[in-house]
Amino acid sequence: MSNSQKRIKGFVTAPLGFKVNAVNAGIRRNKPDMGLIFSVVPAVAAGVFTRNKVKAAPVLISAGRLRKQKAQAILVNSGNANCCTGERGMRDAEALVKKTADLLKIDITGVLMASTGVIGKYLPREKMSAALPDLVKGLDFDRQEAVAKCILTTDKFTKTAEAAFNLGKSRITVGAIAKGAGMIRPDMATMLCFITTDLNISPRALKKALGEAVDMSFNRISVDGDMSTNDTVIVMANGLAGNKLVTVDTPAYKTFLKHLISICKQLAEMMVADGEGATKVIEITVKAAVSKKEARQAAYGMAESLLVKTMIAGENPNWGRIPAAVGASGVRFEEGKLEIKLQGRMVFRGAPVKVDREALINALKKKRVTIEARLNSGKAEFSVLASDLTAEYVKINTEYN
Amino acid sequence: MSNSQKRIKGFVTAPLGFKVNAVNAGIRRNKPDMGLIFSVVPAVAAGVFTRNKVKAAPVLISAGRLRKQKAQAILVNSGNANCCTGERGMRDAEALVKKTADLLKIDITGVLMASTGVIGKYLPREKMSAALPDLVKGLDFDRQEAVAKCILTTDKFTKTAEAAFNLGKSRITVGAIAKGAGMIRPDMATMLCFITTDLNISPRALKKALGEAVDMSFNRISVDGDMSTNDTVIVMANGLAGNKLVTVDTPAYKTFLKHLISICKQLAEMMVADGEGATKVIEITVKAAVSKKEARQAAYGMAESLLVKTMIAGENPNWGRIPAAVGASGVRFEEGKLEIKLQGRMVFRGAPVKVDREALINALKKKRVTIEARLNSGKAEFSVLASDLTAEYVKINTEYN
Repeated sequence: MSNSQKRIKGFVTAPLGFKVNAVNAGIRRNKPDMGLIFSVVPAVAAGVFTRNKVKAAPVLISAGRLRKQKAQAILVNSGNANCCTGERGMRDAEALVKKTADLLKIDITGVLMASTGVIGKYLPREKMSAALPDLVKGLDFDRQEAVAKCILTTDKFTKTAEAAFNLGKSRITVGAIAKGAGMIRPDMATMLCFITTDLNISPRALKKALGEAVDMSFNRISVDGDMSTNDTVIVMANGLAGNKLVTVDTPAYKTFLKHLISICKQLAEMMVADGEGATKVIEITVKAAVSKKEARQAAYGMAESLLVKTMIAGENPNWGRIPAAVGASGVRFEEGKLEIKLQGRMVFRGAPVKVDREALINALKKKRVTIEARLNSGKAEFSVLASDLTAEYVKINTEYN
Repeated sequence: MSNSQKRIKGFVTAPLGFKVNAVNAGIRRNKPDMGLIFSVVPAVAAGVFTRNKVKAAPVLISAGRLRKQKAQAILVNSGNANCCTGERGMRDAEALVKKTADLLKIDITGVLMASTGVIGKYLPREKMSAALPDLVKGLDFDRQEAVAKCILTTDKFTKTAEAAFNLGKSRITVGAIAKGAGMIRPDMATMLCFITTDLNISPRALKKALGEAVDMSFNRISVDGDMSTNDTVIVMANGLAGNKLVTVDTPAYKTFLKHLISICKQLAEMMVADGEGATKVIEITVKAAVSKKEARQAAYGMAESLLVKTMIAGENPNWGRIPAAVGASGVRFEEGKLEIKLQGRMVFRGAPVKVDREALINALKKKRVTIEARLNSGKAEFSVLASDLTAEYVKINTEYN
């Protein structure tokens, strides 16, 4: 592998040395449901996983492998989460990972796995195993559309992003694909994100950068408040760009971090916009809180309030639900000093502020709605992106699967 | 006033010495919207109020008055919560309470107030004030239906309960009316409950009993996870039954407590059944948790999971959402030891349990559904009643008010 690979604009295959493929393994009907992302050389890797106490088998396997901070391939499937499947679920995942490693002729420790789909059902291991040779054989630099699609469930669109920048004489490329969030369909409540880059970076710097980027993006969104058992974000950096090693202390770290955050933020916003049944993206900001923790708590209090979410869906100007949600969140503030802005207009400042109700209703018709709560009890701030809540969401998740 | 009052079966007027009335004060159209509950003699009283940091003016007033543990009247209105209304809201409520006390010819400290309705609008104080003379003049022992209705918003039915028992030669009666919970209509998210009794009881015993009864009932229900700014439970005990004083240490305390808990539980279950758009009552029990706090946390994790609630609404047997919600709640347990029962059938015991899917679907068609999660990490237990989540809920709360 050399730098002479023709650069193909294609998210995860945009950086040098990443081949991908996707096939239909028969987990779902008539659409690609199993994919593979492969670096032609061993890569430095890092991951962030769900904090749910119930973790799917592939999460346990990938998190375990990543203690060594190295990886070369990610096997991914949709249609089955391989979660709540006990010992058998672990054996199924390990067997598929081992066969993939054998076919790729790499060490088993280099293969990670991620799954999304129904919880509590065993993987159709034989079908999946039978499809692996074709999956590996078809790996190529231009199968990026296929792999971006194979991780989707009922997402309405593929979620991709990429960035490029120079470090000295090296051109660095970062690419990513994602799916989720929201329930997408019954029992599927997962976000997956895979990021590739040809950057030469130390394991420690990569891990730190991913943690910071996730904190600034995927940890600031809410569709329905349900936390998946399968959430997975993985980054692989294979060093083929040939730049001087990036470590935490080099200026290049900040450059990379800036682009990584930008990519993750773009994908996070796509997830909220594509939340099940969602019609609007709500940007909720809490200002002047006692601590970042409390600012976050108040922001999520609003983001997860069914009353606030249905109010925005209904373009309903009855803003009283907003201070009620802030008050219910348990953070410290005085009602007399609380200020609430809805779509940039002050509606409450310790008491109701006279507003032009018709103008406010008109302003709420926009696709993007802002809510700001200034607690005036400290200096900390936090923002979260949330989707609204519509009857369509309930319909999708009520229907028998 | 003597014991010779003819006993009328009628919840809050069933105990001796309580008169009530309700009128239309013009807050809402064409239905009673202001009521009064009056004890002909001063009563011992206790209250439990919302823990929302944003508290409505009537909540602040009533909670303040009840530090003296005495009351003689409760003024109540629907259609306006008098919340987020600042100093003016407090002045409005105080003025109405003062006029009520004057008309009743009792001390102002004897009048409590409770409100439910839209947040962030000032009370129509003049209309309400103008209606007070008729409200007081019409007080009677047989207006119980009117007062039970005046606190409703879009509740589908009135919520009432009563109990009677003997203490020595005295016949003790306890009566109650309630409204809520759930949003009932946009911006109305309140539960109110007023309990009357002719029991002769010490202030300390009454307060303790109410706390225990609320903990066993209203603190174990969930419609949508939103906490109102106006939640109010008040009990008045006027002693007219003439029994020997009940104190915390007397055996009679336990007798009273048992009946008070029973009344509160009945009303709490009615609230869940009448939750907006609700079609089912879900009884969620967590067993063998590390602590009662964690059992409660896990139970509410399930009760407030949109995925669990829509699953039950859809009579959907895909139980994987249940362990996912338990795992997301953050309580301590090992997945390998977790046991989940749905409608009495074991579906998960560290791994999926083979179930007759059709039989499970049939069992889920019942109006009452049970979910049990045994964590096997300790000995504590907690149960909560929750309503399911339907598109009708979202529709009601989305519509422009």
